[in-house]
Amino acid sequence: MPVYRAPVEDTLFVLNNVLDIGRHANLPVFAEASPDVVRAILEEAGRLAEEVLLPLNQSGDRQGCRRLEDGSVRAPDGFREAYAAYRDGGWGSLSGDPAFGGQGLPHLLSAAVSEFMSSANMSLAMYPSLTAGAIAAIRQHGSDAQKATYLPKLIEGRWTGTMNLTEPHCGTDLGLLRTRAAPHEDGTYRITGQKIFISAGEHDLAENIVHLVLARIDGAAAGTKGISLFVVPKFLPDAEGRVGARNGLSCGAIEEKMGIHGSATCVMNYDGATGWLVGERDKGLRAMFTMMNEARLFVGVQGLAVSEIAYQNAAAYARDRLQGRSLSGAKAPDRPADPIVVHPDVRRMLMTIRALNEGGRALALRTALMGDLSQVAEDELQRQAADDWMGLMTPVVKGVLTDKGFENAVMAQQVFGGHGYIVEWGMEQFVRDARITQIYEGANGIQALDLVGRKLALNGGRAVQAFFADVGAFCEENRTNEALTFCTKALKKGLNDLQQATLWLMNNALAKPDNAGAASTDYMHLFGLVAIGAMWGQMAKAAHEKLADGADGDPAFMEAKLATARFYMDRMMPETAAHLARISAGADSLMALPAEAF
Amino acid sequence: MPVYRAPVEDTLFVLNNVLDIGRHANLPVFAEASPDVVRAILEEAGRLAEEVLLPLNQSGDRQGCRRLEDGSVRAPDGFREAYAAYRDGGWGSLSGDPAFGGQGLPHLLSAAVSEFMSSANMSLAMYPSLTAGAIAAIRQHGSDAQKATYLPKLIEGRWTGTMNLTEPHCGTDLGLLRTRAAPHEDGTYRITGQKIFISAGEHDLAENIVHLVLARIDGAAAGTKGISLFVVPKFLPDAEGRVGARNGLSCGAIEEKMGIHGSATCVMNYDGATGWLVGERDKGLRAMFTMMNEARLFVGVQGLAVSEIAYQNAAAYARDRLQGRSLSGAKAPDRPADPIVVHPDVRRMLMTIRALNEGGRALALRTALMGDLSQVAEDELQRQAADDWMGLMTPVVKGVLTDKGFENAVMAQQVFGGHGYIVEWGMEQFVRDARITQIYEGANGIQALDLVGRKLALNGGRAVQAFFADVGAFCEENRTNEALTFCTKALKKGLNDLQQATLWLMNNALAKPDNAGAASTDYMHLFGLVAIGAMWGQMAKAAHEKLADGADGDPAFMEAKLATARFYMDRMMPETAAHLARISAGADSLMALPAEAF
Repeated sequence: MPVYRAPVEDTLFVLNNVLDIGRHANLPVFAEASPDVVRAILEEAGRLAEEVLLPLNQSGDRQGCRRLEDGSVRAPDGFREAYAAYRDGGWGSLSGDPAFGGQGLPHLLSAAVSEFMSSANMSLAMYPSLTAGAIAAIRQHGSDAQKATYLPKLIEGRWTGTMNLTEPHCGTDLGLLRTRAAPHEDGTYRITGQKIFISAGEHDLAENIVHLVLARIDGAAAGTKGISLFVVPKFLPDAEGRVGARNGLSCGAIEEKMGIHGSATCVMNYDGATGWLVGERDKGLRAMFTMMNEARLFVGVQGLAVSEIAYQNAAAYARDRLQGRSLSGAKAPDRPADPIVVHPDVRRMLMTIRALNEGGRALALRTALMGDLSQVAEDELQRQAADDWMGLMTPVVKGVLTDKGFENAVMAQQVFGGHGYIVEWGMEQFVRDARITQIYEGANGIQALDLVGRKLALNGGRAVQAFFADVGAFCEENRTNEALTFCTKALKKGLNDLQQATLWLMNNALAKPDNAGAASTDYMHLFGLVAIGAMWGQMAKAAHEKLADGADGDPAFMEAKLATARFYMDRMMPETAAHLARISAGADSLMALPAEAF
Repeated sequence: MPVYRAPVEDTLFVLNNVLDIGRHANLPVFAEASPDVVRAILEEAGRLAEEVLLPLNQSGDRQGCRRLEDGSVRAPDGFREAYAAYRDGGWGSLSGDPAFGGQGLPHLLSAAVSEFMSSANMSLAMYPSLTAGAIAAIRQHGSDAQKATYLPKLIEGRWTGTMNLTEPHCGTDLGLLRTRAAPHEDGTYRITGQKIFISAGEHDLAENIVHLVLARIDGAAAGTKGISLFVVPKFLPDAEGRVGARNGLSCGAIEEKMGIHGSATCVMNYDGATGWLVGERDKGLRAMFTMMNEARLFVGVQGLAVSEIAYQNAAAYARDRLQGRSLSGAKAPDRPADPIVVHPDVRRMLMTIRALNEGGRALALRTALMGDLSQVAEDELQRQAADDWMGLMTPVVKGVLTDKGFENAVMAQQVFGGHGYIVEWGMEQFVRDARITQIYEGANGIQALDLVGRKLALNGGRAVQAFFADVGAFCEENRTNEALTFCTKALKKGLNDLQQATLWLMNNALAKPDNAGAASTDYMHLFGLVAIGAMWGQMAKAAHEKLADGADGDPAFMEAKLATARFYMDRMMPETAAHLARISAGADSLMALPAEAF
């Protein structure tokens, strides 16, 4: 069975030494998040992940979810109890609004905790994560009555949530959606249509399932302008908020998928189900985007999470498996062969995964922190800057951490040689599970388009200019620090490539939009390299200061940080030039073939 | 169900217009391979793949192989009949030695045919492919009696073959192997030990299974110098070569794997089984390498094959699926949305796969041709040059075509969005199946080490210098041809990066071998980019000449070749610089962490 230890120390290093969250202690949600409390929370979350969720990961994959004849769905054995432990431990309410029973801690901590849970059992961790999206949508767009009815139950985790967007003929292009909402005289709506790929659409973990459903009110405009958001619970809440009559919706089938077998992916049929409008009529997409941003950050963390557990198992195997001798002479001469961790090509794989995981974790946590600050920072300018970062980095975190997360899982599997292909070892499950993160919540091509087509130009490019200035300032401030030259040099070069690519887009995409589309994925990855590189710069600086300081901490940990930073700068950053070259090649050769030639 | 059309025209273009195999018509195996015959063979092979093998691909994956209580193994339903059709069609004997019942055609044609079969059903196509390895080993190293006993049956396909190398504690490092061979007074040996990951180790497709087994003769040296090769048939042949008594070997289990469920991957137990020494005592590894080279080229073709069928299905889906509008204005204004093939990021994926498939096919076929010429070319120098190419390119074809084949299958799956993750569509099977090609027959890290640590320096670098001269000559000869400037410019830059990387290795790897190991995978991919790029140069030239000529052929096909060549030069070749940068970074930051830090 795969092993897993929650990376508590690494997370604390980022929170304390890099992001220095202590300086926000004056703000409401951070006031309670003292270093001791944060450590206790992370350690406790790690224990739950390691001891309760992890043991169900392989068995959940093997058994999968089962739809019974009555349309009910059973999660794999043990999921119900493990989810109850999660719920009763208050993990779902960690960053919930205290007005509705939440603990009022930063979302940042929820993000850190969700990484641990997703590493240990990605399928199981999905159930509460979708609930978090539903909470965000109702909290921001719901009426007071809706908040009172749904938020306490969702935050407590007694009820879970879903997002219903996709239909058989429409995924990315929601303008095509056909699910109808017929107004009823009592002010509710009758929802009719079919939704597919609905994660946690039906299961036996919760008392009620709160579906947030996009539908078109009869007579509304075609396209995206006529879409509204509805809350459509599985059981209609009675006046006291208890589950009442069964609503007119059901799970028609569960999908047979490549992975995440423990997560129920449902076809949901709405047959005149009762729904309540959430937010304004015809503004459903806007409300849905509240959920999407939350969910996209989470999916990025899922990519990181699977990569992390895959790394830990590959590292353990590489230290253990004896095969061949080191090129530089035997390292374990008393044994029949050296452990394969001595081989540079095995190191290459381990170091690549590690550098991307630790850098990706720092980027994701910084982005989650900005999400908090965008809500609670003291002045408007700070909130705006935090919101800018959050909006800009959400597609980067989602797209890059999941693309890399999948590649990393594949690399970790490769470390096992033939054994990696055998089910028993568990590595192939990580690959199958990680694969979905590149696809759902907006396929990564859509993230790239969101970044290039939308986020870059927003507010006259304010967010991206602030990011460039931030990275530039780091390079400038540390220009004369010889211990960090390896960072500032590589970062400066990477930033320059990114700025050139941005300039190229400004000059070439407006007149010919295909140039933006042709550049988008490369641009997103170029952006990710620099953004993760910038976090490595900050981590190297913090580690260097800790070592120079000599006061406390674990020197081996700090040395490893510096070595990994160096690896990142040596081996990852050179890719920025290839991305720039591809971007600058433009759309011509890409679009040259007529469609029928494919 | 996935669709598939064998790429007969593309294969013929490579054989006739690029490799010009007609000029070898004076040589024995090519004499019968007239253009008409070759076309007929490819078309017939395509039909078998499309009509017989393809319909069993998904069902074979679902059903898998089953080991019964008596230790026998059943391949999925239909495999037995399909294999019989393959065998009776003479597909296994195509390039077999006529002295033993073969048709005496070039191995090149077998390689082309094996691509079609592997696309249509990778699992099913594995059974005859392992037989081809056994044939090669016995033909080159077996005694006359062994040849007479085994070759006719194996070439006919009535018996199949296996390769038995791996043991639970040793894969790459065969020096550790423990399987013993005890000499018997009648000149045979008693083989005892356990082998794992034995493809086609037990099944119900053939009358007999001929195991080629590495074992250590009692008293032989430890390490790789004491290993011998044995032929150990499932049923002992009687004096007339018919199957006789059951030998002392059995399938102990079949592995549960990520993919290729239709291929029986067996744990084989040898309990004093009767075996005959093949070739010289203690020279087993050398004999095994004969099989490995053959097998490695085949596995490279498997990578290409899965990528090809994945591409065809992604292209069909992209032309069909309506979602969103083109960035440059609606392309299908009368329909609710445009087909997604209009989106540049979808194009990026399709064009990438296509460019690598067509270029990879040309490289694999050229390498297979060199395999033939290394045997049959008229003079010693030609045979030597062909053998040099074959040896140099085998790890490149294996490593690069399978790494890219897997990435391409993943990209093709991505084109389907959420549907790509659903089993029914078949795309996720391609990803699971393709994954093994990066692992078996020597994990790709081993291919990279073979290239950097062995093939580069062989005979004073003769093979690699010849390759550089070949690419350089193409650039020089076409320097003034404006229609090909886009090729020669990009190729020259790529070749320069490759030469610089080679020089760096010469200067830095001898004193510090870890530098070679740290560079190896990047070097292999850099090599692959230039080698495939060189094939694109030749294809562009051939297409350009055909178009200028105007005499015959399909202009749209030739235009597409030129456009795809341009895409390859624009978008793939820029990666050479990133590889060079990583190689030149050396081993320091890669090896910096102590083993216990992982």
